[in-house]
Amino acid sequence: MGRQSSDEPIMLSSIALLQERFKRLQRVKEMREERELLKMFPVTERIKATIIDHDHHDQDLGFPIAPSQTQKNSLLFQPESRRKDVVETPFSMNSWMAIGGDRGEGFNCVEEKWGLQCVATPEQTVYTTKVARNENLAKLQAGYLFPERARALSTLEGYSGYGAEQVEDNIHRLLMQKLRAAIASTFYKGLGIEETDVFVSDGAKCDITRLQILFGSNVTMAVQDPSYPAYVDSSVIMGQTGQFQKDVEKFGNIEYMRCNPENRFFPDLSSTAKTDIIFFCSPNNPTGATATREQLTQLVQFAKRNGSIIVYDSAYAMYISDDSPRSIFEIPGAKEVAIETSSFSKYAGFTGVRLGWTAVPKDLLYSDGFPVAKDFNRIFCTCFNGASNICQAGGLACLSPEGLSAMQDVIGFYKENTQIIVDTFNSLGFKVYGGKNAPYVWVHFPGRSSWDVFAEILEKTHVVTTPGSGFGPGGEGFIRVSAFGHRENVLEACRRFKQLYK
Amino acid sequence: MGRQSSDEPIMLSSIALLQERFKRLQRVKEMREERELLKMFPVTERIKATIIDHDHHDQDLGFPIAPSQTQKNSLLFQPESRRKDVVETPFSMNSWMAIGGDRGEGFNCVEEKWGLQCVATPEQTVYTTKVARNENLAKLQAGYLFPERARALSTLEGYSGYGAEQVEDNIHRLLMQKLRAAIASTFYKGLGIEETDVFVSDGAKCDITRLQILFGSNVTMAVQDPSYPAYVDSSVIMGQTGQFQKDVEKFGNIEYMRCNPENRFFPDLSSTAKTDIIFFCSPNNPTGATATREQLTQLVQFAKRNGSIIVYDSAYAMYISDDSPRSIFEIPGAKEVAIETSSFSKYAGFTGVRLGWTAVPKDLLYSDGFPVAKDFNRIFCTCFNGASNICQAGGLACLSPEGLSAMQDVIGFYKENTQIIVDTFNSLGFKVYGGKNAPYVWVHFPGRSSWDVFAEILEKTHVVTTPGSGFGPGGEGFIRVSAFGHRENVLEACRRFKQLYK
Repeated sequence: MGRQSSDEPIMLSSIALLQERFKRLQRVKEMREERELLKMFPVTERIKATIIDHDHHDQDLGFPIAPSQTQKNSLLFQPESRRKDVVETPFSMNSWMAIGGDRGEGFNCVEEKWGLQCVATPEQTVYTTKVARNENLAKLQAGYLFPERARALSTLEGYSGYGAEQVEDNIHRLLMQKLRAAIASTFYKGLGIEETDVFVSDGAKCDITRLQILFGSNVTMAVQDPSYPAYVDSSVIMGQTGQFQKDVEKFGNIEYMRCNPENRFFPDLSSTAKTDIIFFCSPNNPTGATATREQLTQLVQFAKRNGSIIVYDSAYAMYISDDSPRSIFEIPGAKEVAIETSSFSKYAGFTGVRLGWTAVPKDLLYSDGFPVAKDFNRIFCTCFNGASNICQAGGLACLSPEGLSAMQDVIGFYKENTQIIVDTFNSLGFKVYGGKNAPYVWVHFPGRSSWDVFAEILEKTHVVTTPGSGFGPGGEGFIRVSAFGHRENVLEACRRFKQLYK
Repeated sequence: MGRQSSDEPIMLSSIALLQERFKRLQRVKEMREERELLKMFPVTERIKATIIDHDHHDQDLGFPIAPSQTQKNSLLFQPESRRKDVVETPFSMNSWMAIGGDRGEGFNCVEEKWGLQCVATPEQTVYTTKVARNENLAKLQAGYLFPERARALSTLEGYSGYGAEQVEDNIHRLLMQKLRAAIASTFYKGLGIEETDVFVSDGAKCDITRLQILFGSNVTMAVQDPSYPAYVDSSVIMGQTGQFQKDVEKFGNIEYMRCNPENRFFPDLSSTAKTDIIFFCSPNNPTGATATREQLTQLVQFAKRNGSIIVYDSAYAMYISDDSPRSIFEIPGAKEVAIETSSFSKYAGFTGVRLGWTAVPKDLLYSDGFPVAKDFNRIFCTCFNGASNICQAGGLACLSPEGLSAMQDVIGFYKENTQIIVDTFNSLGFKVYGGKNAPYVWVHFPGRSSWDVFAEILEKTHVVTTPGSGFGPGGEGFIRVSAFGHRENVLEACRRFKQLYK
């Protein structure tokens, strides 16, 4: 990375303009994000910043933008010599950005939704993960034929299709665009995730496999233990792991991040091995534990130090009652290290309907600088044909004001169920976890086999739970109780639990 | 694989013991023990057993079991362990050990937690392909957690779930069973494909990738050239191929089976290299060519000689007007060498709805005798959650008498479109292929670049075609014209073609 010489004039007028502009951006949330962002970048690392997909509003900036602005997706950094300017700027993003000299040097001012970035461009270094691009995807030459053809068509001014297929495609495309936009504005407002970052799918589970196909066989992965079994199983299927080791009940070459009451269900990152991919689900299935903002900030920093990619599963985020982040992208810097996958199943009773999405920020780059989103788009075009349009229309309805309100009602109902279950096991003297921010209650039966407890409950109460060890060795001694049920059934189940364990 | 001697006594007492044992196995706890025991299996190399999902319940056990019936569930066994101590073993392990048979033929009784299988085995020489089972799937231990739990539940007589999820699952399961049965009886009547061989999915394209995940990275594949691009692209993504070779416009390590007017669009198998997998689409996309019964018989024999697995794409089979086979399973012996994938998209206008299926016969075995269907089922459980139930209900409606009649009407309409297109290009002096049994017309422009012709037609007539070379180097010099359009648009397009090429 190059350096700027220290004797360049400071463009005070520009700074003043910027400061003026920043005053208009001082909403509490933004300030908090910026402060955290600053914390994220120690002085020595400030010179690294990457911005994806930003909206230029140069007319707001009030001064000329250098030519290098055209390098839309690249960015960043800041020569140390400029720290004087940094210091002089009391707030906001420019504190870790370079403010270049006049036209002789060139600088970019890039405004994002949540702030203003001024960036010198010529000697830029973009943050990349250390994950190597899947060489098989690199082998593919042109794009997939049909999108390729569609692109050829879209270049024609005034072209309109002639066939039913094309007309329908346009309708479908419009529907998908609307849904992508609605997802972005509902779940990622102010977080810098745009509709073009959102891939609508037939559910998070299917996306997990598509992500594994994306990464290929030569990556290593870490996973919470316990966690949703699809992460580990899909990793095994893709050939990322070694054999199953019966003594420890783990697959070789997977980093199991133990999450238990002792560490409040957040892994000890200081003893966690570096891996290419980190699967992380919060609120967690099965434990119901939810990572705090501080914990997620640690996780993002950990990923950044190691050059890892986080696959963040937020399928239960709408169940969060406290101020835990609903999205990994609430954490500054996460867009450079994380993918987020989610689902309508648990928000809108869409189980069996099959609708979800995955957000892949444009700032997320493989070690060679290639955008992860581009390869994921190729997977979507080649290995998938999109979610059913019927289901997409349903998803769009869910994100209308009425739909959102109905989803909140559904979630509220299940949260009441959760409370009933939590109270029941508490009253019986069990240690109970989860529940608060999740539809799952994680009940401890110390020293007992999960499958034994499962069988005992099934035999004696005819109630179905899920044995914790099915989620990994860290789940042994627990059962997961789900709140997804009719109220009368939940109440009846709890009566029987009380009968059994009184 | 060993053989049983024919002079072993019939061990009726052991049968009685097993029957007795089976009754006692209704209890959950024992079921679970059984599961644990099965996990330990195989304890030694001397016993090899493979069990597929089956619906055997004790009442189904009418001894003796005919060999043909038992072979359906594929199985197993083990010569040395047909010892008397087997009979004396009161519980569990003996369930899958050998019992002597009558009539000089032995059979095995295999008891699992959810049922009892009796299988004749020894003298049968079971055909296996030479395709090695994907070692990554072999690594997976128990089944995927949730189906595993569901199986545990389903063994309980009279059990009924307490939660909405379970009730809904039952409804969904019933729907899916009905659809699987309807697909089997509509498309495979009398061909030996049963509802349990049918996997309902979100479309053939997605299934192609799931099949590639199934086979893994270490297989070789052959493909018609030209053909639907998803075969080659998914193979590249899974790492089965070498680099793209620009001089020949092919990927390394793929066998391109050239299909052109000279060979009447059926490859010269005598010069086709042996591969593990052969993708074959008939009626073909893009050429519209349809293989005859004789040609498909050659193909099946070729696969059998080489130990290959055919992935047969029959997505356009309902467009066949002559007596060409609608399914590869019309060819004797195909069930041992072929998988068939298909879709509602082109039959019922389900493009965008996302519904298809793949039939994997139980007779299709990897080189080690392991059933391909069992691994495919694991892929379906782990990497997928099934097609949307809304779409499945739509598919079921399509297979009702009214639905079938409506589908025939739709297909008839598009076949009229096809004829209009064929007549148009014929009248202009072009050589035209396909069309007869397919909704695609394959028009030859000798010596010209496909993309040039595509661009010429697009610019001068504003009609969208598809350049043939997008389907492989064998498609160069052709364009594909689709019949999927409104009548008035097809007529208008043909008027413009006549204008352009008169």
